[in-house]
Amino acid sequence: MKKLKITPIKNGTVIDHITPGFAVKVLRILKITESTSSVVSVAINVKSKIGKKDIVKVENRELGTNEVDKIALIAPKATINIIRDYEVVDKHKVKLPDEIIGIVKCSNPTCISNSKEPVKSRFQLVSDDPPVIKCYYCEREPEDIAERII
Amino acid sequence: MKKLKITPIKNGTVIDHITPGFAVKVLRILKITESTSSVVSVAINVKSKIGKKDIVKVENRELGTNEVDKIALIAPKATINIIRDYEVVDKHKVKLPDEIIGIVKCSNPTCISNSKEPVKSRFQLVSDDPPVIKCYYCEREPEDIAERII
Repeated sequence: MKKLKITPIKNGTVIDHITPGFAVKVLRILKITESTSSVVSVAINVKSKIGKKDIVKVENRELGTNEVDKIALIAPKATINIIRDYEVVDKHKVKLPDEIIGIVKCSNPTCISNSKEPVKSRFQLVSDDPPVIKCYYCEREPEDIAERII
Repeated sequence: MKKLKITPIKNGTVIDHITPGFAVKVLRILKITESTSSVVSVAINVKSKIGKKDIVKVENRELGTNEVDKIALIAPKATINIIRDYEVVDKHKVKLPDEIIGIVKCSNPTCISNSKEPVKSRFQLVSDDPPVIKCYYCEREPEDIAERII
């Protein structure tokens, strides 16, 4: 019988309570590819107290603010657990900032943030679960945020 | 402490000995997205007897020939384990067929298989580890096979 034993990590980050099925998008946000050397483990559609969830564990890595904000955009209920020496030293729910700058591409092709001008995309948070954001420049509210993350 | 306990699966498929870091590409081949309902677990860069490997487990699913051939193209050392009622009922190494039809896009933009003609891509197997394939029509050998899987 084939067992896949996943042991606790010594140092790193556990992203828990990811919207079920969205772990693959989290891996994309974390840029986990064939050039990654860290140990990563992923559980998709596992049972939780309230329905299903995904979990992503990455060894020897703590996430940057941009990465956490991107995760909040696709998995607003996610929690970030920082592990050091096998202990959870910090645990917090993701929280989107009031302004989301430079991480989502506006869905309006004629928006100035999509022009050749040096203007970063800039959105205002309308609500956070599910995430609704509005472009500061053209007021468009993108529907498919997960597909528009830069 | 945050444990991620992954129990053996009752029915499904375990893809073992995947080239380290290529699990994300295997998930793409298996079309694991937010609309997947099966439980899936993934381990990336875990230790094995000979270096590192990735493992992907998918519950309640057995793979089609096309899927196995695509996996062989990116992870030629992979093994496919079919689990039924907690037992491995079949275990085999992936093996590419002599002709690979309709699953890789030719890298030559002027190849007839890339034209509007109803011609499926068709490659002949030159060697299988690492995979080298040659287009039947234009004799081009694509270098970045993993990126050309349809």
